[in-house]
Amino acid sequence: MIALSLVGIGSGNPDHLTLQAIKTLEAADLILLPRKGDEKSDLADLRRGIVAEVLQTAPKVVEFDYPVRDAKTPKYLDGVNTWHDALAKIWSGLIHDHSGSDAHVALMVWGDPSLYDSTLRIADRLKAQGLQIDVQVVPGITSLQMLTAAHAIPLNDLGAPVIITTGRQLRDHGWPLGADTVAVMLDGECSFQHLSDAQQIDIWWGGYVGMPQQVLRAGLLAEISDDIIQTRAEARAENGWIMDIYLMRKRAD
Amino acid sequence: MIALSLVGIGSGNPDHLTLQAIKTLEAADLILLPRKGDEKSDLADLRRGIVAEVLQTAPKVVEFDYPVRDAKTPKYLDGVNTWHDALAKIWSGLIHDHSGSDAHVALMVWGDPSLYDSTLRIADRLKAQGLQIDVQVVPGITSLQMLTAAHAIPLNDLGAPVIITTGRQLRDHGWPLGADTVAVMLDGECSFQHLSDAQQIDIWWGGYVGMPQQVLRAGLLAEISDDIIQTRAEARAENGWIMDIYLMRKRAD
Repeated sequence: MIALSLVGIGSGNPDHLTLQAIKTLEAADLILLPRKGDEKSDLADLRRGIVAEVLQTAPKVVEFDYPVRDAKTPKYLDGVNTWHDALAKIWSGLIHDHSGSDAHVALMVWGDPSLYDSTLRIADRLKAQGLQIDVQVVPGITSLQMLTAAHAIPLNDLGAPVIITTGRQLRDHGWPLGADTVAVMLDGECSFQHLSDAQQIDIWWGGYVGMPQQVLRAGLLAEISDDIIQTRAEARAENGWIMDIYLMRKRAD
Repeated sequence: MIALSLVGIGSGNPDHLTLQAIKTLEAADLILLPRKGDEKSDLADLRRGIVAEVLQTAPKVVEFDYPVRDAKTPKYLDGVNTWHDALAKIWSGLIHDHSGSDAHVALMVWGDPSLYDSTLRIADRLKAQGLQIDVQVVPGITSLQMLTAAHAIPLNDLGAPVIITTGRQLRDHGWPLGADTVAVMLDGECSFQHLSDAQQIDIWWGGYVGMPQQVLRAGLLAEISDDIIQTRAEARAENGWIMDIYLMRKRAD
């Protein structure tokens, strides 16, 4: 039986690690470390830094490249599923080549493995392939939490619901039903700019939340939408990549 | 200027602390430690244990009792607001009595200060009273993250939205519009039992998530609803208190 630990590492600062994350990584026999391609080398460097500087005992580390997701697949979810299949194949090959059948293997997951992350789905594919595997999840601080912490705001209004969604959902369906607070992740296209009642929406935006490059904007959407779009484009050009996230709240009538 | 750090401590295990949380608490001049009344003494013990066993340098600690929220106030939100006013008065009195005007004061917040927590709203009241105060938020692992970690499940379906809401909202409005996944917090009444299509809903429930007493149930709501209600009642009787949380997902047609 392989023990597979999916360890949330927070969003860009080794200080986001929990004691549980550190202990779990130290106890592993093998750490699989994704490189993810050039534009996200900062994230691979973060993971390498954690192993080198935070862990007291360093397990064996094997780096691997992420396959490129085919963005041209007609249906978005088909492309994602094919990509997960490819990743599962890479994981099982690495586990086979670099560890015994009773090994404790760990992966460092950006943010928390529960939130818009693929690792739990890839682990399910390994099980479906017949690999004897026991999955342990170690939660980490999400970028959503870093965003609300950086702005020192609550996620929810008092006793009120919150929707967490994606840029794609916001573009396809507009402001979601059922809540006056919406958190948006995985949005490469500043999808907030298509909302109709920007005079009634406050936005709290952050790029690289929790990282040294962190940049924040907050205000009425109608007033700062253009500033966010420009700030985001400039930061992306300067750093070669960007991860951003935002929270929006409708004003009470 | 008072520096006020609201430090998320996770949901019941000192290992949930992040390095940032530990460093922030160690650097404080004064820690205000809520006792919250008898039935939650386990939580006060957790906070005392963090100070005694995790921190390398222990700041001055002042314990205080929470006022009791008047559950009989006709409007729920009025009762909560009155309670926050009372808490703000207690905080400002303690800060005045036990620290200088340039002190670094810290509070340990169960879970994360952004999610269904009152401390940011109480800090706002201190500012409104004219206290010079700079608020820093240190995020912590939420009970929602502990729940998904314990069940080793993702919060969201692939690319799909999630609603986080309260038991009260679920009772008053039924299944929320806008998402097939709903996380419910602050539910003292097993409000899932009033949902109509329990044959199409999977539920992942947890009591005391992340703590030694942790108890988990998962399955089709129609099949395990009664088991959860009974398990919750027994655990509450045994421990004298309970905090529970659950995630529900509608099955695809």
